[in-house]
Amino acid sequence: MKKIINAVDQVENQMVAGMVKAYPHYMKKLDCGNVVVRAEKKEGKVALISGGGSGHEPAHGGYVGKGMLDAAVAGTVYTSPTPDQIYEGIKAIATDKGVLMIIKNYTGDVMNFEMAREMAEMEGIKVDQVITNDDVAVDGSLYTVGRRGVAGTVFVHKIAGALAETGAELEDVKAVAQKVIDNVRTMGVAINPSTVPAAGEPGFHLEDDEMEVGIGIHGEPGTHTDKLKPADEIVDILLEKILADIDYSESDVAVMINGSGGTPLMELFIVNNHVADVLEEKGIHVYKTLVGNYMTSLEQEGFSISLLKLDDQTKELLDAAADTPAYKEA
Amino acid sequence: MKKIINAVDQVENQMVAGMVKAYPHYMKKLDCGNVVVRAEKKEGKVALISGGGSGHEPAHGGYVGKGMLDAAVAGTVYTSPTPDQIYEGIKAIATDKGVLMIIKNYTGDVMNFEMAREMAEMEGIKVDQVITNDDVAVDGSLYTVGRRGVAGTVFVHKIAGALAETGAELEDVKAVAQKVIDNVRTMGVAINPSTVPAAGEPGFHLEDDEMEVGIGIHGEPGTHTDKLKPADEIVDILLEKILADIDYSESDVAVMINGSGGTPLMELFIVNNHVADVLEEKGIHVYKTLVGNYMTSLEQEGFSISLLKLDDQTKELLDAAADTPAYKEA
Repeated sequence: MKKIINAVDQVENQMVAGMVKAYPHYMKKLDCGNVVVRAEKKEGKVALISGGGSGHEPAHGGYVGKGMLDAAVAGTVYTSPTPDQIYEGIKAIATDKGVLMIIKNYTGDVMNFEMAREMAEMEGIKVDQVITNDDVAVDGSLYTVGRRGVAGTVFVHKIAGALAETGAELEDVKAVAQKVIDNVRTMGVAINPSTVPAAGEPGFHLEDDEMEVGIGIHGEPGTHTDKLKPADEIVDILLEKILADIDYSESDVAVMINGSGGTPLMELFIVNNHVADVLEEKGIHVYKTLVGNYMTSLEQEGFSISLLKLDDQTKELLDAAADTPAYKEA
Repeated sequence: MKKIINAVDQVENQMVAGMVKAYPHYMKKLDCGNVVVRAEKKEGKVALISGGGSGHEPAHGGYVGKGMLDAAVAGTVYTSPTPDQIYEGIKAIATDKGVLMIIKNYTGDVMNFEMAREMAEMEGIKVDQVITNDDVAVDGSLYTVGRRGVAGTVFVHKIAGALAETGAELEDVKAVAQKVIDNVRTMGVAINPSTVPAAGEPGFHLEDDEMEVGIGIHGEPGTHTDKLKPADEIVDILLEKILADIDYSESDVAVMINGSGGTPLMELFIVNNHVADVLEEKGIHVYKTLVGNYMTSLEQEGFSISLLKLDDQTKELLDAAADTPAYKEA
């Protein structure tokens, strides 16, 4: 394991501390563990909280700021934050309008966020939730519990955050978050795995001529190992599953080419070159494209493609102003 | 060599094509090779051009847009663009106010940009230039030709671009660019090298317990190989050289923790955690911090630290609005 760290048991604390020191105008850390909240509390509007294990940076702390999240809770690497942490985050950002929890669909995350919600509701805080599950790699029918929440979650932060900023009610913010979840699909691949610091060994093994298809974001193996193929063929494999899952035909879509953390931007642009061509050929109109490291898996080399089918409301909210360290819209 | 590409001889073309397809509202490609210019030509203001070899993404194409560059020229990986390419870029963006070339200090880049300048001047275009040389790793006295231009170049783009946007004259835009160059210092380290696609082999070799200190951005070895150390000790090594080179005491500074392309953001934040502490201890005030992949070396794992000493003018220009794919300021 070769990493730029100090101590395995300090990576999360020092990461969050380093993030807060980088962005003091955006965020501050609570005293109860790795919970960051906006530097200035948003008042009179629905507040958004998300989080999960560490190792997905800039998710989720990097999305704390105007037009996106109000709080982000970080567990240890690839491990759910505790209910106590989440509860403290909820309490710190709660307003009369309520709090929306944006949870990626993992058993631990869902359980711990729901426990935190119960604790907050007992304090009279209005809380509701959505669960993202955009990963088409995992078999299962639409909206089964088995589907993982991955990079598409960032679109939920952006669009729900933008609506919350207008002063909308909790039920409306929840509804648009759910609309994004219903219309976003993602699939990923890796050519080199990541190593959880505390484990010291990679989560899976690949030969020099192999890739792992259908990866999640927690360093786990994907659905299967395949021979490494040219970038365009990899894109075709991923797009085939994504496009088969929702009818995107003649739609406007937002595209996210998400790097896994160790992937050079050059390769992500090479990926987008073919994604754009395939979508154009199929009559799918690209409204906006994001290319970069949005939801990572430590140093894993690989990428995911997310396609979000847009309507007028979600287009407008996607374009709305956002000012966070990792996602800005003028 | 394990990469997500199609063909070694197409990486630059497909990368630039994929970038333009991702950001059509920001940029378009000229027909004369890998030159990108703003989608809408800036009129009546000094125009800025930069560039260099490919492999440094998002540099430089990602900085084309309002408040930063007007054109970016991309050579093959780690290789200077040709004078013809640069000349076409200059012609496409030239205004009556003139064009400023921001050149990283490498023999090939300087020579080719200067040849392009001569070609443009023969056409009656007003052109001037600055040469960035922020890398303190390479021995030599201040402002010798030996010093390399590295990540600090992005601060030159930002600050000179902001002044150009106000309608300032060429001599003033050049002067502020030079002020940034005079006040920014950078040093980097790598724990894993990058592989130029056409070469097929890494630019240097490191054992599992080694790091390369004083790296440049072209995959070349650094000043020396050392045993891999804890992140805080690596930071101390880099900061010692940077802080010895300019008197930063009691200054306001901008900090850039720049990832080399394959470095997880978690590790960059861990680096920043200690950088912030050391600067605070030394009475140096951090005005703004950037953490991310700004000037990369393909998939190299490592980072550089840049410190820019600020004054009132450069602070204001650093804070000014920018809207480019890779650098936004609200």
